[in-house]
Amino acid sequence: MNDELVPADRVPRGFRAGAARAGVKTGVADRLDVGLIVSDRPCAAAGVFTTNRVIAAPCVLTRANLAGGTLRGVVANSGIANACTGEEGDRAAATMVEAAAAAIGCAPAEVGVASTGVIGWQLPVGRIARAIAEIRPSERGFGDFARAIMTTDTKPKVAFAETDVDGMSVRSLGVAKGAGMIHPDMATLLAFVVTDAALPLDDLRAVVGAAADRSFNAISVDGDTSTNDTLLVLANGASDMRPSGDAVARAAGLVTRVCESLARQIVADGEGVTKVFEVRVTGAASRDDARRAARTITTSNLVKTAIHGADPNWGRILAAAGRSGARVDDRRAGVRIGGLDVYRDGAPARIDPADLRRAFAAKEIAIEVSLGLGDADATAWGTDLSAEYVRINAEYTT
Amino acid sequence: MNDELVPADRVPRGFRAGAARAGVKTGVADRLDVGLIVSDRPCAAAGVFTTNRVIAAPCVLTRANLAGGTLRGVVANSGIANACTGEEGDRAAATMVEAAAAAIGCAPAEVGVASTGVIGWQLPVGRIARAIAEIRPSERGFGDFARAIMTTDTKPKVAFAETDVDGMSVRSLGVAKGAGMIHPDMATLLAFVVTDAALPLDDLRAVVGAAADRSFNAISVDGDTSTNDTLLVLANGASDMRPSGDAVARAAGLVTRVCESLARQIVADGEGVTKVFEVRVTGAASRDDARRAARTITTSNLVKTAIHGADPNWGRILAAAGRSGARVDDRRAGVRIGGLDVYRDGAPARIDPADLRRAFAAKEIAIEVSLGLGDADATAWGTDLSAEYVRINAEYTT
Repeated sequence: MNDELVPADRVPRGFRAGAARAGVKTGVADRLDVGLIVSDRPCAAAGVFTTNRVIAAPCVLTRANLAGGTLRGVVANSGIANACTGEEGDRAAATMVEAAAAAIGCAPAEVGVASTGVIGWQLPVGRIARAIAEIRPSERGFGDFARAIMTTDTKPKVAFAETDVDGMSVRSLGVAKGAGMIHPDMATLLAFVVTDAALPLDDLRAVVGAAADRSFNAISVDGDTSTNDTLLVLANGASDMRPSGDAVARAAGLVTRVCESLARQIVADGEGVTKVFEVRVTGAASRDDARRAARTITTSNLVKTAIHGADPNWGRILAAAGRSGARVDDRRAGVRIGGLDVYRDGAPARIDPADLRRAFAAKEIAIEVSLGLGDADATAWGTDLSAEYVRINAEYTT
Repeated sequence: MNDELVPADRVPRGFRAGAARAGVKTGVADRLDVGLIVSDRPCAAAGVFTTNRVIAAPCVLTRANLAGGTLRGVVANSGIANACTGEEGDRAAATMVEAAAAAIGCAPAEVGVASTGVIGWQLPVGRIARAIAEIRPSERGFGDFARAIMTTDTKPKVAFAETDVDGMSVRSLGVAKGAGMIHPDMATLLAFVVTDAALPLDDLRAVVGAAADRSFNAISVDGDTSTNDTLLVLANGASDMRPSGDAVARAAGLVTRVCESLARQIVADGEGVTKVFEVRVTGAASRDDARRAARTITTSNLVKTAIHGADPNWGRILAAAGRSGARVDDRRAGVRIGGLDVYRDGAPARIDPADLRRAFAAKEIAIEVSLGLGDADATAWGTDLSAEYVRINAEYTT
């Protein structure tokens, strides 16, 4: 199959992928639900995982396998999350890794595994192992892989980046699934980024943490993650770039760009999302205050519904900042919507209601909130809350 | 008007109330939106207010007036919250208090004031002052007062309690408005409780804090409150009970019972609510962990939508506990829905799907979650999330 989603000439050298139908979710046999990514040589590998205290079996196993710093591939499934599944779940994750290792021809400890879907159900691990054995990875298979990890996503999420490092072309490719409500109860976020850059393990680990902070963590902060969230980055060095200082920084930038693109695609494809908004908090007494206020505003159901309905109820934004725990001087605070001052120096600004309504009606809304205190700032991204979101999530397992 | 909602013979002695139409929200002239409660003698008075950093002008003023420990009455309005309104808002709250003091015949410092409605709009304070002057408080007026403070509430909320203390009948009466989504972005909660018990000020203050903890704080925890939340309790001693130790405790119990009833009415009347659920967390390492887990579960949009759709997706409950920050041993944890074990000793229990579906289909659902660690427990109440909720909140100011 010739896949327009991921042209083969944009795939980092030495990587292949594919997917198969395992019928993970009973009665849903006709969709791709198991995927495999393979490198033809060992990769430096690093990851970031959920901080949820209830952590899924595949995350536990992958974190353990990453201790060695080297992976040859990744196997993932959708349909069932293999979370809250006890020892049977541990065994299922191990079986997936063994099946993938057999397919790749490597040790089980060189495989990462991830699952997404319903919590508390056991995986049909026999069907999954058989499906893994059927996968024929190729340069053209990343589109199928991206489709295989979708749950309520309406479209597969893929991002590319390429740059020249010392005359060598270096590529990075990422696939992700998100949807869900992102935060605070986001559906699982899975993101896999591969690059043919030569990145020493320590550098790679630093890059992955920083890239997550600038991308996925701005849509799903630590402590508010699902049981299965996983970001895995594999660097196989097949581009022949030499890992000198500046080259490493440039190659690392590719990974960050890919992560940022995936994060924005995830927000835009949130469940039932019709509008997206950015919240920039300034004038905070500390960076932590700024982040807290920005995150609380983006996750406030009252703000999200107001934005959905284009209801110019900007007071909810300030109220959310006020209850976030961030320090606010409400007599010096300010709120700006789409460049329009609605609250300034601690009092409502005189504005034309038509202008305000127009600002709230935009498909992408920029909100700026000054807390009136210090110099710290932070940005977060949110989505509206629609009746469609409720419908999707009221019928998820059915 | 003879009001069935609040029979005059259940009203604590010495209290009267009434309401009028001020047209607070432009174009909404034909509803009661300003109310007054009056005591014929000075009352010991205590209150609990929002912990939001953005605090509305009426809360600031009432808290200042309570420093004296004595009130003669309370004035309240719906339609506009008088929050984020700067100095003009401070003056409006003071004008309301002055108008009420003139109507009652007391000092402005003896009046409490509360507002609820849209944030960031200025009150039409001239119309409100004229409406206050028109109110003719009576024993029959509490029903009208309860109606005047409603916003998206579908019904007025009133609770009574009466007991004998040393042969004397002692009464308590409460009125409240809630609706909104309760928590985390609850619409303003206003609750006013009057009693003819004789309660010394220190006792009253302790009673109000404890009553709030067992009632409103179980539906709206500190730090997650609106800009205007107010609980005010006035005790005028008109029952002639003598404030000895046991009598005080019994009279205090009346206030707590009234608060609990109002809190449950508020949950049941949450915006777009079709189902309510109770979350009891046990086995927590600390009381704080138990509260945090219970609150996170009751406010999880994924849990709320699953309950709305009767989708037996119990894994979301455990995932919410896991991201709450509470310590969880997921290999010893348990989840029980409507008495049905769905997760036990760290693994899914074998259950009949029909039983599970029936448990999730109930109008009132009892959820029990054991964190598998210690002895601490906590309970919280939540509501489902419906498309109707989204509709209400997408059109609130319009």
